[in-house]
Amino acid sequence: MPLNLPPAVTRRIPILDWGRRYDRDAFANDALAAVIVTIMLIPQSLAYALLAGLPAQMGIYASILPIVLYAIFGTSRALAVGPVAVVSLMTATAVGNVAAQGTPEYIAAALTLAFLSGLFLAGLGLFRLGFLANFLSHPVIAGFITASGIIIAASQLKHILGIDASGHNLLELLVSLFEHLGDINWITFVIGASATAALFWVRKGLKPLLLARGLKPRLADTAAKSGPVAVVAITTLVVWLFSLDKFGVKTVGDVPQGFPPLTAPSFSPDVWASLAGSAILISIIGFVESVSVAQTLAAKKRQRIDPDQELIGLGMANIGGAFTGGYPVTGGFSRSVVNYDAGAETPAAGAFTAMGLLMASLFLTPLLFFLPKATLAATIIVAVLSLVDFSILKKTWAYSRADFAAVSVTILATLFVGVELGVTMGVALSILIHLYRSSRPHMAVVGQVPGTEHYRNVLRHEVITHDDILTLRVDESLYFANARFLEDRIYDMVAQRPKLKHVVLMCPAINEIDMSALESLEAINERLKELSVQFHLSEVKGPVMDRLKRCDFFGHLNGKVFLSQHQAMSTLTADKDLETTAA
Amino acid sequence: MPLNLPPAVTRRIPILDWGRRYDRDAFANDALAAVIVTIMLIPQSLAYALLAGLPAQMGIYASILPIVLYAIFGTSRALAVGPVAVVSLMTATAVGNVAAQGTPEYIAAALTLAFLSGLFLAGLGLFRLGFLANFLSHPVIAGFITASGIIIAASQLKHILGIDASGHNLLELLVSLFEHLGDINWITFVIGASATAALFWVRKGLKPLLLARGLKPRLADTAAKSGPVAVVAITTLVVWLFSLDKFGVKTVGDVPQGFPPLTAPSFSPDVWASLAGSAILISIIGFVESVSVAQTLAAKKRQRIDPDQELIGLGMANIGGAFTGGYPVTGGFSRSVVNYDAGAETPAAGAFTAMGLLMASLFLTPLLFFLPKATLAATIIVAVLSLVDFSILKKTWAYSRADFAAVSVTILATLFVGVELGVTMGVALSILIHLYRSSRPHMAVVGQVPGTEHYRNVLRHEVITHDDILTLRVDESLYFANARFLEDRIYDMVAQRPKLKHVVLMCPAINEIDMSALESLEAINERLKELSVQFHLSEVKGPVMDRLKRCDFFGHLNGKVFLSQHQAMSTLTADKDLETTAA
Repeated sequence: MPLNLPPAVTRRIPILDWGRRYDRDAFANDALAAVIVTIMLIPQSLAYALLAGLPAQMGIYASILPIVLYAIFGTSRALAVGPVAVVSLMTATAVGNVAAQGTPEYIAAALTLAFLSGLFLAGLGLFRLGFLANFLSHPVIAGFITASGIIIAASQLKHILGIDASGHNLLELLVSLFEHLGDINWITFVIGASATAALFWVRKGLKPLLLARGLKPRLADTAAKSGPVAVVAITTLVVWLFSLDKFGVKTVGDVPQGFPPLTAPSFSPDVWASLAGSAILISIIGFVESVSVAQTLAAKKRQRIDPDQELIGLGMANIGGAFTGGYPVTGGFSRSVVNYDAGAETPAAGAFTAMGLLMASLFLTPLLFFLPKATLAATIIVAVLSLVDFSILKKTWAYSRADFAAVSVTILATLFVGVELGVTMGVALSILIHLYRSSRPHMAVVGQVPGTEHYRNVLRHEVITHDDILTLRVDESLYFANARFLEDRIYDMVAQRPKLKHVVLMCPAINEIDMSALESLEAINERLKELSVQFHLSEVKGPVMDRLKRCDFFGHLNGKVFLSQHQAMSTLTADKDLETTAA
Repeated sequence: MPLNLPPAVTRRIPILDWGRRYDRDAFANDALAAVIVTIMLIPQSLAYALLAGLPAQMGIYASILPIVLYAIFGTSRALAVGPVAVVSLMTATAVGNVAAQGTPEYIAAALTLAFLSGLFLAGLGLFRLGFLANFLSHPVIAGFITASGIIIAASQLKHILGIDASGHNLLELLVSLFEHLGDINWITFVIGASATAALFWVRKGLKPLLLARGLKPRLADTAAKSGPVAVVAITTLVVWLFSLDKFGVKTVGDVPQGFPPLTAPSFSPDVWASLAGSAILISIIGFVESVSVAQTLAAKKRQRIDPDQELIGLGMANIGGAFTGGYPVTGGFSRSVVNYDAGAETPAAGAFTAMGLLMASLFLTPLLFFLPKATLAATIIVAVLSLVDFSILKKTWAYSRADFAAVSVTILATLFVGVELGVTMGVALSILIHLYRSSRPHMAVVGQVPGTEHYRNVLRHEVITHDDILTLRVDESLYFANARFLEDRIYDMVAQRPKLKHVVLMCPAINEIDMSALESLEAINERLKELSVQFHLSEVKGPVMDRLKRCDFFGHLNGKVFLSQHQAMSTLTADKDLETTAA
C-alpha cells in the first residue's frame, strides 16, 4: 500500500485515508455494529421496497453495492446508506407517473431514477455545488418530513386492513380507504394490528422492562433492537402454521434467491426527460436528510464531514444501485443512529452490513415466503410515525410568521397536493419570501444622539436633525429587486421636505451595489441635481467603494463621500454656518 | 360633476381628478400632439401587426379602445399605449405555439393573449404586486431589448428581399434567409432598400437640413416626423402607378373599412393553459418598458406616476383590446416621447389619437391596398435598430462580472434559443446569482484599531487581536441559504485556534435572522459549549433583538449579549485580567 498519497486523491477517495489506519479494535467494533444493523435492515429494506411499489428483494439489493460504494467514497464514519421512507415514497410517486406498478417498465424506471439521481448528486459534488441544498430551509424540511410521514403511514393502512386503496394525496387515500372498508380481511387486520402494537411496545417498553428484570444495558439494547425481527419471525410462523395465506392474508411470496442481479438503467431520452425533475428533488431531499444525520453524528466525535464529498459518495451509491437491482437510496436517520450507537467506527461497518445482507439475499429469502405484508406495513408505520412532529409549527409561529407560512404551505401541499409539489412549493415560497423582504429593505432616517458621534433612527431615539439635511440609512445591500424602492422612497421624502439641500445616504449595512442599483443611484443623483439638492454618501464599505471607483459614478456625483456620518454632518453643518455668516 | 370625490376613487380612476381641471389650453396642446402621434402611429401600427403575424388592421384596432381605457385608468400624462415591437414579437412567438399564422385560431389566440395579459396586469395592480417587476434587473432588460431588436430586424429582411423565410431564433432565421436568397424579388428589394435608406435619412438628416434651410424648429420637427408617412405614401403610389403588385411586390391588400369589430377571447381552459406563461412574460416585459418610459417623462415635469395604478391602466387597455379586435399592447417608448415632445398635457391627448385612428380605420384603409409590405418592414427595421445598444455589455463588464453574466446569457439565449426563454433565463440567473452571493456572505475577523473604540477587518487594518477571543463580523442577514455556511466557517476557525475561549459574533449588518439561522446559532452555541468556548453576540440590531427575545435562545446562550463591540472586548479582557490576577 503506498504510504503517501496526494491529499487530492485521499480527499476524493476517503477509504485510502482511514483504510491505512484500520486495526483489529476498529474491526471488532465495526463487525458488531454490522450484525445489529443487518438484523434491523432486513425487514426495513423489504418494507421500503414495497412502499416504493417494487418487489421486496429490491430493497435488499439497494442496500448491498450502494453501501460498499459509500464506504469507499463517503466521509461519514457512521452513516448507513440504503432505502429510506421518504425517498421510497418519492420514488413511488415519480415512477408511478411513468409506468404502472408491477410492470417491467416500472422496475426499469426505478433503476433509471437511481441512476439519474446518482449522476446529479455526483455532478453537484464534483462541481462543489453542495450549497444548493441550503435553499431547503430547516422549517421546510421539518414540515416536509412530517407530512410525508403521515402520507406514508396512511398509505400502509390498506396492508394492515387487507384491502385495496390508492391515491395521490392524503384526501384521495383516505376516501379510497373508506370506500373499501367493507372488504376488510379480519385475519390480516388482527395480524397487522398486533404487529403494530408489538412494534410500538418493543420500541418504547421492551428495553425498560428488560433493564428492570436485571439485564445488562448493552444486552437489553440489543434485544430491544432485535424485537422487530422477532415480530417478523412470529407473524411469518403464524401464517405458515395455519396456512393463513389461503384465507386472504397477503404475503411477500416468492423472493428470488441469489446475488443481486446485474441490471441497467434506461438510456431513453424520453424516460430521462420525464424522470429528471423527480431525480433532482429526490437527490436534494435525500442529500439534505443524509448530510444532517452525518453532521450530527460526526459532531458528537468532533469529526468533520465534507458535504461535497458526501454528494460524491451518495452519487456513487445510487449509480451502483442502478446497476445491481436497486432504487434510490440515501443515508437513513434511524439506521445511522443504530449504527453509531452500536459502536461503528469506520465505513467498514457499512461494508460488513452489505455482506450480511448479501448472505440474507443468498440464504434467507425462502423464509420470507409467508412473511405477511401487514407486518411490513406495521414496520413502516412505526418507523415513520416517529418522524411526525408538528412542533415546528408552534416554534415558527412564535418566532417568524414568514417561516410559519413556508412550513404550513409545505405541510398542506405535501398532504393534499402531492409530495413533489409540496416540497417544491415550500422551497419556492421561502425563496420568494426572502426576495420580497430584501426587495423592501429596512430604512431609517437617522439623527445625531446629542453629545455623541452616534447617529440613530429618529423613530427609536431622541436625536438632533436638521431641516435642510436628510440622512437615510439603508439596512440592506442594494440590488435590482430593491433599487427602485430606494428611488421611490427618496423621491417621496424629498417631495415632503421643501427646505432640503442635502441628502446623505448612510451605507454601513450596504455590502453590495449591483448594476441596477448603481443606475438607480445615478438616477437619484440626477433628479436631486435638478432640484438643487446635493447627494452624499457616508460610511461606504471598502469593497463597495472599490467597485464604485471602477465606473464614473463619482465623476457625476453632485456631492461628497464621507468616511463617517459624523464627518458628513460636521462638514455639511459647517458649510451652513459659513453661508449663514457670509449672508 | 361631483366636486369632492373620495381619494380612493380618484386614485383608481385618475381621469376623475385631472378631467375636472381640463381647460381650453390643455385641449389645444393635447389635440396638436394627437395629430402628430396619429400620423406616426398609422404605419407603425400596421407594421407591428404584421410583425405579430396578424392582419394589418389589428394594429389599428389595438390602438383605439386600449388608448381610451388607458386615458381613463392610467396615471401617466404622456404615455402613448399601443402595439410595440418587442411585445409584437413575443405575441408572434406565443401565438405561433398554439396555432398557424393566417388561421382564425391564430387571431383568436392573439385576442386571448391580450385578455389574459390584461387580467394578469390588472390583478397585479389590484393586489399591489407591481414590485414583482423589479426582479427584471436593468441589465437583463437592456440585454433583452437589444437582442429582441436584432431578431425583429432579421425577421423583416424577408419582406425587404421579397422572399419566404422563417425560424424561431436568429440562427434559423439567417439560415432560412440564406437558403431562399435565390428567390429575391428585385423590385421589392429596390423598394425596401430605398424605403429603409429614406427612413434612416428622415430620422437623422432631414431635420438638420430643414433647419439649415431656414425653417422654424417646430415646423422642421413636425415635417421630420411626417417623413415616414411620406415614405409610405410615395412607395404606395409607385406600386399603384406601375402595377408592381403584378410583378410579385407584396402589398397590404384588402383592409376592411369600418369600426373596430366586437370580438371575444377564447375561454377554453386548454388555450388559457397554453398561453398563460407567455401572457405573464408579455405583461411583465410590457409593464417594465411602459413604466420606465412613464417615469422618465413624469420626472421631467416633476410629476409622479403610481406603478400599481399603471398596472390597472395597462390591464384595462389589454382587456379592452381583446374585445375590439386588438392584441397585446403596452406603453411604447418612441410614440410616448413623440407625444410628450409634441406637447401632450393630459391623457386626453391619447383619446384624441384614438379618434384619429378611428377616422383612419373608417376612411383611409382603401388607400392602403397598394402599400408594399417592404415599406412596413423598413419602418420596423429603422425603429428597432435604435433599440439595439451593446454598451450595456461594456458597462457591466467594467462594473460587475455577475451582471455581465446575466446580460450575456440574456442576449445569447434570446438570440439563439428564443425570446421567452431568453428573458426567463436572464431573470432566473440574476436571482440565482443574488442568492448565491448572499449564501456565502462576506465575513471578517475583526480587531481593535489601537487607541480607538473601532473594530476593523484584520486583513485590511493594523489591529489588536487576542489569542483567546475571536470576533467575527458577518456582513449579511442570516437566513436559510447562508446559515450552514456560517456554522462551517465558525467550526473551521475554532478548530484552528486551540487557545480559544470566546467567540464574539458582531452583528451590526445583520438585519434579519430567520428560523433556519436561529437553529444554526443554537447549534453553534451547543457545539462551542461542548468545547468550553463561550459564544457572545455584539451590536445586535433592535428588530433582530426583539425577535430573538420571542424564543428561548438567550435562555440557552452560553455567553452574553453586548451593546457594542468595545463593551464586549472590555468585559472579556477584564475577566481575563481578573483571572490572571487571581491566578
